[in-house]
Amino acid sequence: MFEFKLIKKCRQTGARIGCLITPHGQIETPAFMPVGTVGSVKGLSPDEVINCGSQIMLSNTYHLYLRPGESIIRMAGGLHKFMNWNLPILTDSGGFQVFSLSKLRKITNDGVQFSSHIDGSRHFLTPEVVMNIQRTLGSDIVMPLDECTEGTADYKTARIALERTVFWLKRCYDEIYSNDNMTQIMFPIIQGNMYKDLRIESLERSLEYAKCGIAIGGLSVGEPKPVMYEMLDTLAPHLPDNMPRYLMGVGSADSIIESVIRGIDMFDCVLPTRIARNGTAMTFSGDITIRNAPFKDDFDPVEKGCDCYTCRNYSRAYIRHLIKSGEIMGGRLLSIHNIAFLHRLTNKIKNAIKEDALLDLKKSIMDNYVM
Amino acid sequence: MFEFKLIKKCRQTGARIGCLITPHGQIETPAFMPVGTVGSVKGLSPDEVINCGSQIMLSNTYHLYLRPGESIIRMAGGLHKFMNWNLPILTDSGGFQVFSLSKLRKITNDGVQFSSHIDGSRHFLTPEVVMNIQRTLGSDIVMPLDECTEGTADYKTARIALERTVFWLKRCYDEIYSNDNMTQIMFPIIQGNMYKDLRIESLERSLEYAKCGIAIGGLSVGEPKPVMYEMLDTLAPHLPDNMPRYLMGVGSADSIIESVIRGIDMFDCVLPTRIARNGTAMTFSGDITIRNAPFKDDFDPVEKGCDCYTCRNYSRAYIRHLIKSGEIMGGRLLSIHNIAFLHRLTNKIKNAIKEDALLDLKKSIMDNYVM
Repeated sequence: MFEFKLIKKCRQTGARIGCLITPHGQIETPAFMPVGTVGSVKGLSPDEVINCGSQIMLSNTYHLYLRPGESIIRMAGGLHKFMNWNLPILTDSGGFQVFSLSKLRKITNDGVQFSSHIDGSRHFLTPEVVMNIQRTLGSDIVMPLDECTEGTADYKTARIALERTVFWLKRCYDEIYSNDNMTQIMFPIIQGNMYKDLRIESLERSLEYAKCGIAIGGLSVGEPKPVMYEMLDTLAPHLPDNMPRYLMGVGSADSIIESVIRGIDMFDCVLPTRIARNGTAMTFSGDITIRNAPFKDDFDPVEKGCDCYTCRNYSRAYIRHLIKSGEIMGGRLLSIHNIAFLHRLTNKIKNAIKEDALLDLKKSIMDNYVM
Repeated sequence: MFEFKLIKKCRQTGARIGCLITPHGQIETPAFMPVGTVGSVKGLSPDEVINCGSQIMLSNTYHLYLRPGESIIRMAGGLHKFMNWNLPILTDSGGFQVFSLSKLRKITNDGVQFSSHIDGSRHFLTPEVVMNIQRTLGSDIVMPLDECTEGTADYKTARIALERTVFWLKRCYDEIYSNDNMTQIMFPIIQGNMYKDLRIESLERSLEYAKCGIAIGGLSVGEPKPVMYEMLDTLAPHLPDNMPRYLMGVGSADSIIESVIRGIDMFDCVLPTRIARNGTAMTFSGDITIRNAPFKDDFDPVEKGCDCYTCRNYSRAYIRHLIKSGEIMGGRLLSIHNIAFLHRLTNKIKNAIKEDALLDLKKSIMDNYVM
């Protein structure tokens, strides 16, 4: 049911064009995946997300486990049906959310105990439980429970987390692939904090559990971008060609280009929709704070040359008015633009890889891109 | 540019089927008009509103005057272009909003002085200014500045407000129809509080300013529904046949049926979208609080037999989950359903009028309708 076709390798860089085939459709890589944390890309309908160019949506096991709970989604016939999304779904395991959102967490080799950020209720998640929840959700791509350390963690802490992540990975693997499960694939998550030897070790020990994809976690957690790129450079020579590489939680234009050059194929991030709701548009000239006063009488589209629904039909002035007035439609229109922007970016990247001109594209984009 | 065709009069009641032709399209009556207060039906795109069945949108002069301001909308080329809505627009004058939202208001025969509910800034609106703003907005149907008294106002207060409303009406008329304005029509507003003689007098003194439509204001402001119906009964024999009658601010199923029976053709209300965002669905069984626990595992559509986008694609359980999670999409889906519900209602009413069976329809609806 799953297959990754490597279509072209860039001659200038580590970039690749590929295609991941899943039971719910294919994902052309490099790909950006919008995030529907609790089963909805905030404010957007599935059709709108698809019209932006999305071929897969990410959702969060942690959130869905706490609310509405897996039993509701089981009764609905799975997450695809529940949220009316018929394309592929990737669900994050909840590991990162347990560490970033929940309180009173206690981690042992058995699993993780934590209090819900919603109502304080106590929960205990094991690798097996997390796999079973994702089996119920029916996501195409599932993620194992992992331990994500802070970017400032010392070596010993990072080492312990790595060991636990690998230990849990085997248990996740055994659980998700029991019963001849052919409709879901698990991407192991490489951890190791900012320590190169740990990153390589984590990758090497994860490979035997990687069937058709591997993920890099624990980056973009506050470290400077050059540090993240250094970690990607460290991993690049060791990553297998025959599966997609997913860099978790990255979604800015500059980071996507730099990461694709280092061999990354898949990305997800709440950034485009989060900043949209705050009145910021992503463009090839950098982020634009549409809510600012200069746009009050600017009747151009958000970005000239963009053919998204928002840019075809609305002006910056109108969107600014909506944002200033607290109207939901403002964030919705900018969310559409921002997601479409990241797909335009990955499409430009694909075309440049085809033409062996990715470094030229990078230069032309970064010359105009104000950070 | 404007014409009202009276298509059929009900043989059982005062109800009518009609069609109001405007420069931006026609409105089949009885009609419900959704409200886009600041130039956006909260959370919905124009296409979605149209797909619900809407043929006209109401917007608010008071809000648009304060933000973004008429100069921005002039530069945009009018409100239709600004908000990407190509069907008819009716703009309320701001009279009601000045009295319900603003502070420190002072009313004289010249006009109304008030402080903005947004930033406290002082403003002075005259009948002429209000007409000029609406000319700039380019709304198809404009409303005159009127004085709306509280439902509990005494006779003398209501009398003074009536006199001022008529005085302002003439000034609005002279202003809006100066320069051979053929693209906008003004509906005079009947006031008179809950005093029958004042209501009739207000109607009679308004008629000479009514070219192709008349409105009834100052009802549904807190008085019991039977009192509102009594006022409509009082007015009914005196209302001209050859123009649509618009009852301002009414949008519940029972009130719409009762009012249509009393000869009303047009309605507007924020109710369907406001309660939607709070998790309540309008149905032919009465309002349903989808956010309540019993719907957590209810996988039926919001209302069986409804063919709106929401009911075709989503379950009550999913919408409840979105509402409980504070997801914008929940309010959006219920807004779509609620607006579509009111159009389904007016369509049923039209069919019943055609078949001279409106009283049967009323009985069958009200027998199932829980208030």
